[in-house]
Amino acid sequence: MAQYPNKQIILAARTDGLPRADHFATRSAVLKGCDSGMVIVRNHYLSVDPAQKGWMSTAVNYASATVGEPMKALAVGEIVESRLEDFRVGEFVTGWFGWQDYAHVGLDSIQRKVDPMLAPIRYAVSILGLNGLTAWIVIQDLLQLQPGQTCLVSTAAGAVGSIAGQLARQRGCHVIGLTGSDEKVAICEREFGYHAAINYKEEGWLQALQRACPQGVDRYFDMAGGWISDAAIQLMNQQGFHVQVGTAAVAAWDPVPSGPRRERIILVKELTQKGFVIFNHVSRFDEAIRELVQLLDSEGLCFREDIRDGLGAGPQALVDLYSGANTGKTLIRLAGE
Amino acid sequence: MAQYPNKQIILAARTDGLPRADHFATRSAVLKGCDSGMVIVRNHYLSVDPAQKGWMSTAVNYASATVGEPMKALAVGEIVESRLEDFRVGEFVTGWFGWQDYAHVGLDSIQRKVDPMLAPIRYAVSILGLNGLTAWIVIQDLLQLQPGQTCLVSTAAGAVGSIAGQLARQRGCHVIGLTGSDEKVAICEREFGYHAAINYKEEGWLQALQRACPQGVDRYFDMAGGWISDAAIQLMNQQGFHVQVGTAAVAAWDPVPSGPRRERIILVKELTQKGFVIFNHVSRFDEAIRELVQLLDSEGLCFREDIRDGLGAGPQALVDLYSGANTGKTLIRLAGE
Repeated sequence: MAQYPNKQIILAARTDGLPRADHFATRSAVLKGCDSGMVIVRNHYLSVDPAQKGWMSTAVNYASATVGEPMKALAVGEIVESRLEDFRVGEFVTGWFGWQDYAHVGLDSIQRKVDPMLAPIRYAVSILGLNGLTAWIVIQDLLQLQPGQTCLVSTAAGAVGSIAGQLARQRGCHVIGLTGSDEKVAICEREFGYHAAINYKEEGWLQALQRACPQGVDRYFDMAGGWISDAAIQLMNQQGFHVQVGTAAVAAWDPVPSGPRRERIILVKELTQKGFVIFNHVSRFDEAIRELVQLLDSEGLCFREDIRDGLGAGPQALVDLYSGANTGKTLIRLAGE
Repeated sequence: MAQYPNKQIILAARTDGLPRADHFATRSAVLKGCDSGMVIVRNHYLSVDPAQKGWMSTAVNYASATVGEPMKALAVGEIVESRLEDFRVGEFVTGWFGWQDYAHVGLDSIQRKVDPMLAPIRYAVSILGLNGLTAWIVIQDLLQLQPGQTCLVSTAAGAVGSIAGQLARQRGCHVIGLTGSDEKVAICEREFGYHAAINYKEEGWLQALQRACPQGVDRYFDMAGGWISDAAIQLMNQQGFHVQVGTAAVAAWDPVPSGPRRERIILVKELTQKGFVIFNHVSRFDEAIRELVQLLDSEGLCFREDIRDGLGAGPQALVDLYSGANTGKTLIRLAGE
């Protein structure tokens, strides 16, 4: 029976604040053979996602990581052993494989097979993974963008926002981004399809946003929430639609922080505010991937990757997500091209 | 040319808090004849509405009263003079006629003609006016209630809530009300179709609400907002739908008060929160009135009126709305049956 030396990054402690390197620990385990109904996957790329902060917290959430286990994460890798029907050695799969070299998993942890001829396999955890899927499904199914509408995107230069901006532009919208540095503003305007982007760390940013949205805001693709959105929703038009995809501007949720009440502006403007969790939209993945691959093939999508090498890079990569130090999608490469 | 001695209740001062009697003044004017394109309406019933507080405030709103003018209000009355095509003396109309004996108004202030054979004319400013229309349109068009869903209604015994509860019950829902006294709890359960009602002023009310909603809350018809809804939305199910029809639990909006942030629960549960202003749904009035008249004719609707006599009763009637001293619809009778 084959044995796999398996280095792992373990969640050592929960946190309701920002993740730090000391919330994690390294463990050297040995994986001994494959159980019936399972496969062993050698991880090639690990996904680093803002949502991981939520999985580390004690607050109510749609998913949770487990203390003492490899940090919950999506990954893409190659099957090196299989006792699971329809899954063969040498095939690539993506799913909940965690921060470790090898994952011993069953069907419940596998999202889908990945075709290496279609696109580089790492795309399965970025542009063709949750990031691209989130951007496409929110814009297509929830915001239902129409030509001429003004669409605002917060965390505009991020792995999701950078795709959302381009998809909104392709639908004939006036697209404005909110982001946290002048460098990202430039990238948003040059690469990601935004008509304009605003640095919310600059004084007078709300006035600048107002000037950039002379017709007001009809649709808000919001991954920030918190104080940024308290201000931004003042610019929303009657019947505006605001999708809450993330809450990056709120550092911690336990205890639940306070902010200005929104009931009145929601009522008076007949706004719609709606939450979005990608895992509730799995039935839309196939169509979304088909559309995104088509856009990639026709060079209709631009995106950035921040690829770091080695399992040990995981914790710092996650920390950097919240310091605003990254642009585009952060990945950890363990093997492969 | 006929002259009409016209007593008026004037808005004397704006307020961002609760209305008091001293925000109003009495004025004796004389209305001298009817201009071209106008009618003179003798008011029979004035409507007293929670929304009037918002019209008195300096905060952003969908409508506003004017200082020095008769208090903005809906009313129903008889045309006593007409120089407006298609409107004849002796016909009844409802519209923005203000707190005064006579209104000199044009088409822009008239909502519709009222047929005194269909129902008592005062119904035009209660069950067949904004109150009934709001209940019907929110339930039919926004909440789209399905049999078996749990529907929560706040300010459950009020002029809108009392209708909403019955309409929800008729649609096969499990209907739970929130209200502010044990007396109102009893009325809700006995008259207004609620399976149960909870007094939010009692200790442990949230636990009681939870027991009354063993399947959680799918749909929330919310006229309270504020601290009541901060608690109640914790009970909402995945994909829950929350319509903000009023904000009675928030005393003042300038400055905007703080409350626990809802971004996270909206995201995680994929809740929808949507605002509602009845005046944006005028195209639905005809169908709503037809349906409500049918229900009244078949004795399928129960409602309460709190009818007070004389123009001078207006300010105190408005004050009482916010003290929770009323049940059902408050009207001021100036003339008629």
